[in-house]
Amino acid sequence: MTNTSPPTTIKALLFDVFGTLVDWRTSVAMHAQNHLGKDFSLDWLAFADAWRDQYQPSMQKVRSGEIPFSSLDSLHLINLNRVIQDLGLKGVEESTKRELNLAWHKLDGWADTHEGLSRLRTKFLTAPCSNGNISLMIDLARHNQIHWDAILGSEIAGNYKPNPIVYRASVKALGLNPSEVMMVAAHSSDLKAAAEQGLRTAFITRTFEHGPVGSKNYTQAEHEAHTTVDYSATDLIDLANQLSC
Amino acid sequence: MTNTSPPTTIKALLFDVFGTLVDWRTSVAMHAQNHLGKDFSLDWLAFADAWRDQYQPSMQKVRSGEIPFSSLDSLHLINLNRVIQDLGLKGVEESTKRELNLAWHKLDGWADTHEGLSRLRTKFLTAPCSNGNISLMIDLARHNQIHWDAILGSEIAGNYKPNPIVYRASVKALGLNPSEVMMVAAHSSDLKAAAEQGLRTAFITRTFEHGPVGSKNYTQAEHEAHTTVDYSATDLIDLANQLSC
Repeated sequence: MTNTSPPTTIKALLFDVFGTLVDWRTSVAMHAQNHLGKDFSLDWLAFADAWRDQYQPSMQKVRSGEIPFSSLDSLHLINLNRVIQDLGLKGVEESTKRELNLAWHKLDGWADTHEGLSRLRTKFLTAPCSNGNISLMIDLARHNQIHWDAILGSEIAGNYKPNPIVYRASVKALGLNPSEVMMVAAHSSDLKAAAEQGLRTAFITRTFEHGPVGSKNYTQAEHEAHTTVDYSATDLIDLANQLSC
Repeated sequence: MTNTSPPTTIKALLFDVFGTLVDWRTSVAMHAQNHLGKDFSLDWLAFADAWRDQYQPSMQKVRSGEIPFSSLDSLHLINLNRVIQDLGLKGVEESTKRELNLAWHKLDGWADTHEGLSRLRTKFLTAPCSNGNISLMIDLARHNQIHWDAILGSEIAGNYKPNPIVYRASVKALGLNPSEVMMVAAHSSDLKAAAEQGLRTAFITRTFEHGPVGSKNYTQAEHEAHTTVDYSATDLIDLANQLSC
């Protein structure tokens, strides 16, 4: 579904990161194998899925107020401990866990990410609006040679998407009106929440976010948006073309 | 005075911006003349000084808790109204004031700023730790072609330097220890406050921040640090040389 309302002047693009810009699944699997592969023989993609499956439940504790805001790095480490316990992996050193936790700082971008973002930045302010903390976003940007104008999202808001405050705080930091800002994501839930705060929306298809056959909690990636959006693109280069960048 | 303690591994540099990286005085004077020069004949450098003279008192109201945190853009606009009133300038349109207020988003860097920051970024994470709000910092970076890793400082802390929370929040966002971060500034008060939070410090001489003869509240810029610092440099290129960038 694409919105048919007249276009407003879009001045800035906010980006979801995990899944939309970077391939967390194969990157995390690779780093997990690098850190744990000498001691354990596992399906490393399933390990990445299991770790990621803890993502939403852990953030929900913050969103519900059950626990105070803590960075995604902190939640990732708690979740890693849980996965290691669930899989019965004995004797993993704390230092190994801390190093493996930084896998999320070194995720590889999709093939179009660098070029797409570079082109989009020629016309728009660009910033991540991710649940990842600032230092994680800094490291991902360095790893993938991304030039952000600022790093917005969960840490400046003190809460996690899709809590409305994350979109509102990010728009406010840009000094813009919500209708001047477009959220770009591969997930309808993110775009729907952004649209509810008045932002414009662009859906990006990321067919292989969850691998060719999906995982336990995600049978497959979204091939098209399940909510009304302003733009729908096959990748960031397609979006750059549609936005005449 | 230069600190003689053994060097620690510095991973990130935080920069003061107004005065240290950009020449606010002549830039503001030029923009004021552009916006008001058709109706008024003034000493525009004195106008810039008068506007800047309101800077510390307005932030002090936030630091003391007298008023809640509000962005520097907001304070600048309040301060502009005061200067216009004090100087007896009648009939200035609200739209003109709002446009002139954006002069602070378009300040020109010193001659060494672009090259110095580019070189420093090859070895360190770099971010502003300024009292300017995020959108102001975004615009200054675009105006001067600066590539920041993140924008830190007052807005993420909800307070103004030299309140300790601004340095602590900026270091925390980088995911580093204070001793791994160096504050770079042309003002001893900023460096002293950063050092008190455990940061390393680098002083930059900006002889002409307040013009060749100084202004009412600043008889002259600091030619050398009045507090113990780790590095002292004549400009950012000198600092890059000293740090082997």
